[in-house]
Amino acid sequence: MVIILDKKASEAQIENIVKHLEGFGFQIHKSTGAERTIIGAIGVKPNFDTRNISILDGVDEVYRVTTPYKLAGRNFKEDDTVINIKGVPLGGNEIAMIAGPCSVENENQMFRLAKVVAQSGAKFLRGGAFKPRTSPYSFQGLGEEGLKIMRAAADEYKLLVVTEVMQIDQLELIDKYTDVFQLGARNMQNFSLLKELGRVEKPIMLKRGIAATIEEWLMSAEYILSGGNKNVFFCERGIRTFENYTRNTFDLSAIPVIHKKSHLPIIADPSHATGLRDQVPPMARAAVAAGADGLMIEIHDDPENALSDGPQALLPETYLKLMEELRLIASAIGRTI
Amino acid sequence: MVIILDKKASEAQIENIVKHLEGFGFQIHKSTGAERTIIGAIGVKPNFDTRNISILDGVDEVYRVTTPYKLAGRNFKEDDTVINIKGVPLGGNEIAMIAGPCSVENENQMFRLAKVVAQSGAKFLRGGAFKPRTSPYSFQGLGEEGLKIMRAAADEYKLLVVTEVMQIDQLELIDKYTDVFQLGARNMQNFSLLKELGRVEKPIMLKRGIAATIEEWLMSAEYILSGGNKNVFFCERGIRTFENYTRNTFDLSAIPVIHKKSHLPIIADPSHATGLRDQVPPMARAAVAAGADGLMIEIHDDPENALSDGPQALLPETYLKLMEELRLIASAIGRTI
Amino acid sequence: MVIILDKKASEAQIENIVKHLEGFGFQIHKSTGAERTIIGAIGVKPNFDTRNISILDGVDEVYRVTTPYKLAGRNFKEDDTVINIKGVPLGGNEIAMIAGPCSVENENQMFRLAKVVAQSGAKFLRGGAFKPRTSPYSFQGLGEEGLKIMRAAADEYKLLVVTEVMQIDQLELIDKYTDVFQLGARNMQNFSLLKELGRVEKPIMLKRGIAATIEEWLMSAEYILSGGNKNVFFCERGIRTFENYTRNTFDLSAIPVIHKKSHLPIIADPSHATGLRDQVPPMARAAVAAGADGLMIEIHDDPENALSDGPQALLPETYLKLMEELRLIASAIGRTI
Amino acid sequence: MVIILDKKASEAQIENIVKHLEGFGFQIHKSTGAERTIIGAIGVKPNFDTRNISILDGVDEVYRVTTPYKLAGRNFKEDDTVINIKGVPLGGNEIAMIAGPCSVENENQMFRLAKVVAQSGAKFLRGGAFKPRTSPYSFQGLGEEGLKIMRAAADEYKLLVVTEVMQIDQLELIDKYTDVFQLGARNMQNFSLLKELGRVEKPIMLKRGIAATIEEWLMSAEYILSGGNKNVFFCERGIRTFENYTRNTFDLSAIPVIHKKSHLPIIADPSHATGLRDQVPPMARAAVAAGADGLMIEIHDDPENALSDGPQALLPETYLKLMEELRLIASAIGRTI
Repeated sequence: MVIILDKKASEAQIENIVKHLEGFGFQIHKSTGAERTIIGAIGVKPNFDTRNISILDGVDEVYRVTTPYKLAGRNFKEDDTVINIKGVPLGGNEIAMIAGPCSVENENQMFRLAKVVAQSGAKFLRGGAFKPRTSPYSFQGLGEEGLKIMRAAADEYKLLVVTEVMQIDQLELIDKYTDVFQLGARNMQNFSLLKELGRVEKPIMLKRGIAATIEEWLMSAEYILSGGNKNVFFCERGIRTFENYTRNTFDLSAIPVIHKKSHLPIIADPSHATGLRDQVPPMARAAVAAGADGLMIEIHDDPENALSDGPQALLPETYLKLMEELRLIASAIGRTI
Repeated sequence: MVIILDKKASEAQIENIVKHLEGFGFQIHKSTGAERTIIGAIGVKPNFDTRNISILDGVDEVYRVTTPYKLAGRNFKEDDTVINIKGVPLGGNEIAMIAGPCSVENENQMFRLAKVVAQSGAKFLRGGAFKPRTSPYSFQGLGEEGLKIMRAAADEYKLLVVTEVMQIDQLELIDKYTDVFQLGARNMQNFSLLKELGRVEKPIMLKRGIAATIEEWLMSAEYILSGGNKNVFFCERGIRTFENYTRNTFDLSAIPVIHKKSHLPIIADPSHATGLRDQVPPMARAAVAAGADGLMIEIHDDPENALSDGPQALLPETYLKLMEELRLIASAIGRTI
Repeated sequence: MVIILDKKASEAQIENIVKHLEGFGFQIHKSTGAERTIIGAIGVKPNFDTRNISILDGVDEVYRVTTPYKLAGRNFKEDDTVINIKGVPLGGNEIAMIAGPCSVENENQMFRLAKVVAQSGAKFLRGGAFKPRTSPYSFQGLGEEGLKIMRAAADEYKLLVVTEVMQIDQLELIDKYTDVFQLGARNMQNFSLLKELGRVEKPIMLKRGIAATIEEWLMSAEYILSGGNKNVFFCERGIRTFENYTRNTFDLSAIPVIHKKSHLPIIADPSHATGLRDQVPPMARAAVAAGADGLMIEIHDDPENALSDGPQALLPETYLKLMEELRLIASAIGRTI
Repeated sequence: MVIILDKKASEAQIENIVKHLEGFGFQIHKSTGAERTIIGAIGVKPNFDTRNISILDGVDEVYRVTTPYKLAGRNFKEDDTVINIKGVPLGGNEIAMIAGPCSVENENQMFRLAKVVAQSGAKFLRGGAFKPRTSPYSFQGLGEEGLKIMRAAADEYKLLVVTEVMQIDQLELIDKYTDVFQLGARNMQNFSLLKELGRVEKPIMLKRGIAATIEEWLMSAEYILSGGNKNVFFCERGIRTFENYTRNTFDLSAIPVIHKKSHLPIIADPSHATGLRDQVPPMARAAVAAGADGLMIEIHDDPENALSDGPQALLPETYLKLMEELRLIASAIGRTI
């Protein structure tokens, strides 16, 4: 932490600041220039609230110098993390594909779509079993029945399952059926749930909160990592901005930024980012070109009758055609799908 | 819902659109102009996903015409709702004051601060007992012990208790000690919790999500109201914008907007909105002048050693002086505190 | 400027960084800790692009320590600046009122409205003479004819004139008629125009750009001040955010922030910030309560037929009633209107 | 325009609303439902301010149904516009490359960089001659001397020139040297300048304002088109959001949205969008994959000593390598560079 003092800071004020810093356990390096004094404070805990210092009299500005995360940082681990999910890598040279419907609706639907997913070469099947919605009258998901169906469909087509956990009390149940826990955007800062996910053994797909900075996102990963679970990957899914033609603004720059700041993989979800079917293929292609380590795509073979988010689901034929384009783009940057 | 068709929409496309609308249960009013056809669709459920229509061929734009909320709307109930909290009104001519520390730290602290709160004429004592934090190493709140202390301090000084519930499994416990349930910004769209809060009998203070539009906020209130709990009031606490000098941007315009759109009361929280002590008094004054039905203010008599959010807490003397100014401002607009 | 080096920065990298810093004219203070080296660089020009250092190998983070503005800063001048506009103070204890229509439409309209402005006790008359609009077919303002009318109306009622200048080539003409130059939000970073305004003698009302941070706004003031014109005051008029119920989000926190960072006065414009007549009175009251040194309010006695922005204009009777409330609020915080 | 009336709108109110609509020149279609009345108003001018109706008593909501632009819309012209710039197409299957330094610094620099541009296969050379900057002490550009140098360098290597015009009084001078006029982000709503650009014969590259919605951007294009200049193309360069790790948030979704809404070409500028050299290659690749009709890239062979924006300039070798990747990605989606 670097503390810039007021030009007019008195000796008594400086002493008081130093006393506080030492009280918080910092080592102090004071350097007095012609115009003002700068204090370097070494040893800050990642989560120190710098406002504790900025409100003291005589302080002009305070800069936290170290990142508030450690385990998630590129400084901590120089090489890219590759997560091994039952033998399927996520994070290396091969780009991982996750596809499936928004919600598990029934057995027939899941088996039909799992077949499409397998046919496309993707290794992961997605689908929601718990769907708390804006209205109490909307479809709320099939619950455990949905999990069972998805597992069976995945097994039939040799796919791995990715599904969302929303509450701590669902963890044990979902753990029986899934291969990857998805943590949704609204729960990115649900610290109780993050703490529990630090104790499970399966990988966590951590979606970005709709208003989360990249740093806050890294902090949420840190929370899981610090609990002991090293298998975390990010999923960019759009942020809220003044532009509202698209549902969210897909922040693809987050991909190279995460790759610079962290060793953890990052995938992208163009379906939720844009919310509109015809935007999904160009944005999926862009995500791969920007360096995403994977994609999550929603598909449906009867989107007009889908029980949720039909308007953003790709038809199987569009999805299969997209996969061809993605393979060419991956190859253009030396990767495979 | 109003559907504007493409100028070039074919007869077959129009028929298909009408078929879909009828399938969703709408009554249709078609009016064909010189340039294009407009379809009015009556009977839409509040939560209908208009994208289901906007993706059909031949559709240019779709406008949802009714608000997605009903019970929360001014149309549903013309008069202002005044919530009676054990005899203390919230929402009428008198402006309600809620004050107290960020966290309950110990008995002595709470009794000292409760005394200040009572002395100021405020009727509500606030304090957090569960404080899941960004870091697992930070102070996490006293839990039930904190609730007990706060209840005792409130009873001693004839105050009412406002405290936050974060998870469904805390509801029963907190219910034993609180008079008002606070729902925090991060949980504004935790629909499972909203559903449970619709079943309790105590009033709910619904904080605005950091990236929530006013309409989404009203929808969250609707969720509680539709569960049977009519005692909901809003709390504006700042939104995330590009400006980051203040922690959030305090959206005071939300006060007259909510008063126009809804019959429910709205209070404001300048402490969390700004995050900086010296910003709290001017923003508290502004909130009252803008028509807020109440304020929530954080206070602490030793903020430098507060276990959380000390930098935004007012000192008792600043708080008491602020109350004097607020009384004059309330009087200027024909209200009392 | 403080430069935090990579933990793994080599000696050669550090030397190269120091060489660059010295090349840019900085004095260097190097302090080597257990984990990493920190370099303090003294003497940076306000406008130094810190990215020049952040891209060098071995650099982790760069913090600009001094503010990029000087003359506009509270450090430069401790006392509040009070601008004397032909004997009328702007910035002291008395809150300045500017009122009038969006556009000057004709002589009769301006004289009627100037009378209302004078009757309310306001000292400043506003009105637009040049109105370049989104459409080439809209009313574009009366030009010099409008300026003449406004000057005559102001003189008749002993008011001062505030009007907008949009292009350098209008400066000479407008100077003949106005007492204060308004610089609009879209021109806040029109540096050529800012430079010219630094050379005029009349006060400048500097509106905040719709996406401008407070720091960028201070920089624009700095530009004018550095040209020699010391009479600059700010006008908050709303920023663009994801919330679009109101035209803009009125950032009232900017008022105490500017008062902390700068010695220059700041007024607020609730008419443009909200864009809706019924939002103007509560937001005007809030601005005064937050500490604004003045207000700019649009009024019209026939808003349904106004040639521009009628929907946000207050009727004279609403405006006069608002002034009564504002006087009480001003008095509550020890000021006068 | 569709006007939704209040459920409780009186007959007198409805009559008054209709009278106003007719006064504005609309044709009226009134349809009275069980719950409320809806009025369709046909014939609205693109720039009608719907607030004129929304403030009338008895009105609940007003929806503008037609887009406010016409000539720029896909409805007006179904086929993609391909702009012919001295024989080089912009907008068709071939992706146009514009490259060069931020500022023209001297003859030697421009000739060296023009050679690199030509070598890469790009057809357009960029460079700034007028650089009004945040500080009056910074490099302000070479002016006409810079234009002469750039023209000579372009001619030597058979390139076309793209350069920015900032003020009306620069138009005539710049016209002597440039092949394309760039309109910068800060001038996107400089309506006087837009009007003048509608009268020139050369193509206009219209950059998106930092806080401009896609619709406002289309309106600015409409302004130029309506003046008679049909050769307009868009340039996405990032918008301002709460995320500030990157200078701006590169809104790549704007590319497919513009392609859907408009027939005009759109290119992307990853250099200004990200502001950081190491972000440029992934974002350039993503823009091509998303369907951009061109790219503008800043390059410099001595970025540490560049007179402006060095930190975002690619080195020639990085740029040439990037071009190889871009060719493969273009080919993956059936296009060429």
